[in-house]
Amino acid sequence: MSFIAKKIEIHTDRRVAVLNEKDAARLALKESDRVKVHCGGRSASAILSVSPKLVAEGEAGIFDTLNDVLQVRDGDQVEVKISEAPQSVQFVKKKMMEGVALTKEEIGSIVQDIVNLDLSDLEMAAFVMSQHFRGMNIDEAEALTRSMVETGEIIDFERPVYDKHSVGGVPGNKVSLLIVPMTAAAGLFIPKLSSHAITSPSGTADTMQVLTNVDFSIEEFKEAAMKAGGAIAASTGLNISPADDILIRHVEHPLGIDPVSQMAASIMSKKLAVGAKFLLLDIPTGKESKVETEEEARSLASMFIELGRRVGMRVACGITFGGAPVGHAVGPALEAREALLALAGKAASTSLVEKSTSLTGMMFELAGVASQGQGKEMAEATIRSGKALAKMREIIAAQGGNPKVRPEDIPVGSHIGEIKAQYTGYVTRVSNAALVEIARAAGAPAEKGAGFEIEGKVGHFVKKGDVILRIYAERESRLEAAHSLALHTEPIVIEGMLLDRIP
Amino acid sequence: MSFIAKKIEIHTDRRVAVLNEKDAARLALKESDRVKVHCGGRSASAILSVSPKLVAEGEAGIFDTLNDVLQVRDGDQVEVKISEAPQSVQFVKKKMMEGVALTKEEIGSIVQDIVNLDLSDLEMAAFVMSQHFRGMNIDEAEALTRSMVETGEIIDFERPVYDKHSVGGVPGNKVSLLIVPMTAAAGLFIPKLSSHAITSPSGTADTMQVLTNVDFSIEEFKEAAMKAGGAIAASTGLNISPADDILIRHVEHPLGIDPVSQMAASIMSKKLAVGAKFLLLDIPTGKESKVETEEEARSLASMFIELGRRVGMRVACGITFGGAPVGHAVGPALEAREALLALAGKAASTSLVEKSTSLTGMMFELAGVASQGQGKEMAEATIRSGKALAKMREIIAAQGGNPKVRPEDIPVGSHIGEIKAQYTGYVTRVSNAALVEIARAAGAPAEKGAGFEIEGKVGHFVKKGDVILRIYAERESRLEAAHSLALHTEPIVIEGMLLDRIP
Repeated sequence: MSFIAKKIEIHTDRRVAVLNEKDAARLALKESDRVKVHCGGRSASAILSVSPKLVAEGEAGIFDTLNDVLQVRDGDQVEVKISEAPQSVQFVKKKMMEGVALTKEEIGSIVQDIVNLDLSDLEMAAFVMSQHFRGMNIDEAEALTRSMVETGEIIDFERPVYDKHSVGGVPGNKVSLLIVPMTAAAGLFIPKLSSHAITSPSGTADTMQVLTNVDFSIEEFKEAAMKAGGAIAASTGLNISPADDILIRHVEHPLGIDPVSQMAASIMSKKLAVGAKFLLLDIPTGKESKVETEEEARSLASMFIELGRRVGMRVACGITFGGAPVGHAVGPALEAREALLALAGKAASTSLVEKSTSLTGMMFELAGVASQGQGKEMAEATIRSGKALAKMREIIAAQGGNPKVRPEDIPVGSHIGEIKAQYTGYVTRVSNAALVEIARAAGAPAEKGAGFEIEGKVGHFVKKGDVILRIYAERESRLEAAHSLALHTEPIVIEGMLLDRIP
Repeated sequence: MSFIAKKIEIHTDRRVAVLNEKDAARLALKESDRVKVHCGGRSASAILSVSPKLVAEGEAGIFDTLNDVLQVRDGDQVEVKISEAPQSVQFVKKKMMEGVALTKEEIGSIVQDIVNLDLSDLEMAAFVMSQHFRGMNIDEAEALTRSMVETGEIIDFERPVYDKHSVGGVPGNKVSLLIVPMTAAAGLFIPKLSSHAITSPSGTADTMQVLTNVDFSIEEFKEAAMKAGGAIAASTGLNISPADDILIRHVEHPLGIDPVSQMAASIMSKKLAVGAKFLLLDIPTGKESKVETEEEARSLASMFIELGRRVGMRVACGITFGGAPVGHAVGPALEAREALLALAGKAASTSLVEKSTSLTGMMFELAGVASQGQGKEMAEATIRSGKALAKMREIIAAQGGNPKVRPEDIPVGSHIGEIKAQYTGYVTRVSNAALVEIARAAGAPAEKGAGFEIEGKVGHFVKKGDVILRIYAERESRLEAAHSLALHTEPIVIEGMLLDRIP
């Protein structure tokens, strides 16, 4: 049936069309029905809303997201028809109900419909949850990876691309800010795309953003990376593996769910899209990290290596200690400052430098620029010689930042609170989960200067009254919230040699 | 922050509030954020939409569903604040991620938030899918049942209530139209609530609606049931176990998923809400039925009996043949006609009468009005004596229909198509799934006269050219669609004794 288009300027995640309730009744259409809207040569699926007044009889209201596709002007003629669920919904249901492996074509059709916004949140959730509960075999994971690459932008740098990624889950993991310049300093081209934080106190993109720009068009990103021989930029908005972004935003983040197959396809698709031939994968492992046991980490590593082999990417995995924050600092500005200090050879933390040079060493060995066992030493040399820091300054400059930035120039929160040891003893436990909550309560990652520095890590001997945690916030109210959280969650546990006495 | 309310007359399933994009940016709010809107003493959770133009700065657009709670008028002052996900979301995630059993309180909190529309479709899907994949123990199922009763209307008839239910999945199952009057004719009070069809060609409410009214307020339903000593009405709109209706509409129907625990709680909560003390449960079992094997059926029966014991309801389960339609007719008017004929002792189908009297007999034995083994005979007597038909006419009258209705008065589709046997031989297979599709293609259940009569059931000997399926439709285009579907899906398979010859 034909209607007169009326633009409704509301942004919604879904494409929505609105009909007058009388027209809807006439067409036997109900709220939330799936419809197809045609205008000129263009058409798109939409979810129907029904209104007694917002649109008159004979009018069809077109929400913004729908109009991105249809490009109607008020008064244009549009056709609205009931539409069946796309075929891919059957494939999602098959996976969910029968648990069978899906074919390449079936997965491709699901991913295409996700990118076209043709699946509802519910249908996308069923797809992700089926992966969580049923798992995917390596053929499915490969098909998922390839489909996610093909439905987005692809960047061709016309040279061998090295890349690095962490599966995440450990706070303070600013190692990319060391690994990228160390790698680039050795002449290996490493145009790294990172994400902003979703649930952590700072994503690599958030930390880098303290030092320089990270949001680019594809052309700008390409130019910056080629200029400096490396880059650290945000993948947001580049339309690289867009299905991944949609699933994260609509399902994985709201439900706090990240099935292994989806995580693998997410990482590999983004790397494939920039043409990576060599990938170094950091798998932080430990209690309250995303991967909790070494066994799990090893099985994950095998999967990534096999997936890499199938898509033409050499993958090396480093299983790293994820039971506590990496380095001392957590939060965008505090982490950026710590990374700059470490590149300058002035790190207070051994764990940060140790982890970064070990992983960079693996990259050098993977690339064949260092012989086996010699990579770490070569990585350390890039710091000692000042080459890594110089490269970092080049990268900052190529991305439009101030290459002369000094650690002490970086503003951190001026509201500072200290947590002191209540007893003399040894730090026996550190809770990543509690620390992440404290940093976020302090305002990270939105407030760049917010976060904390941890002084007491596991095994440290502390005296009663020693500062074990220093919280930074940009606002007093945030500091209070974080401070009180720190007092009642006990993120750092200190015990003497005598653990209990009875009575 | 305070805003001026502006009503936006769109019906949506979710509660939606709209802010101008500048205000949203100022509050660091994004599209799809969860907000709490306060006005006067009332408040409700809502999903945020962001618009550049629909509302001006300083205004908050309030969608219809949100305004059902808030009752604002244009110009009222409202507060809009970011809001955390309700605590029950953590319980849903716990079930999903850890697979642990939830406590009574946790389940109660989830159900309450479902009824309050405080959970997103995604969160409700996670709850239902977790039941599908993780299962629920009997304690959880009991808690789910009780919470679903308590969050809705409860009817107290102040007398012993008998009830009957089918877990569904077999087409043509109009047995309630025989069992209810037979039971009521024996003086047992049976105020049955049924649902309209969701995926089947006719729900009991759709079939009964051909004969009389089925949509009532609680008071009207009570009055009709008390007057006739029984009733067959629709549960829709009565707000009985509303969580069930919400989950069916938002998750189970769209995803085609119906986990055992949710199905059990759905049935038991609706029965508990009308105060049922005795429940006869029909479990149709067979290929392409909801329950496929007898083993499954027995395990389901034990669960219902135990769940009944816990909530004070005596449950008897009949495992019935579900491999083919019950009786000959499928579709609202055709089924109503067949039921009336059967009550009048003029049934062409033995399966319908056989099933109905067997189940009613079990009810009589459960109630203690017939001794063990004598129930079926007593049920048959209510038909022979004309008492069951007389009671059905009383029920029709009490619900406002014409008690004198005759089977031949019931209008059925005037567009009729016949499917004839292609071979002489035996019917070896009947596909419920294909038959359901044919009936729905013909227009059932929305077009009451649509459906089919099946002549060739398994084991029948048919001659080439015999009519095996007669399709009824109200419109020629629907008939053509159903007819062509019947020709290419082969819902009734005929084979000779010689099944194949080579070459």
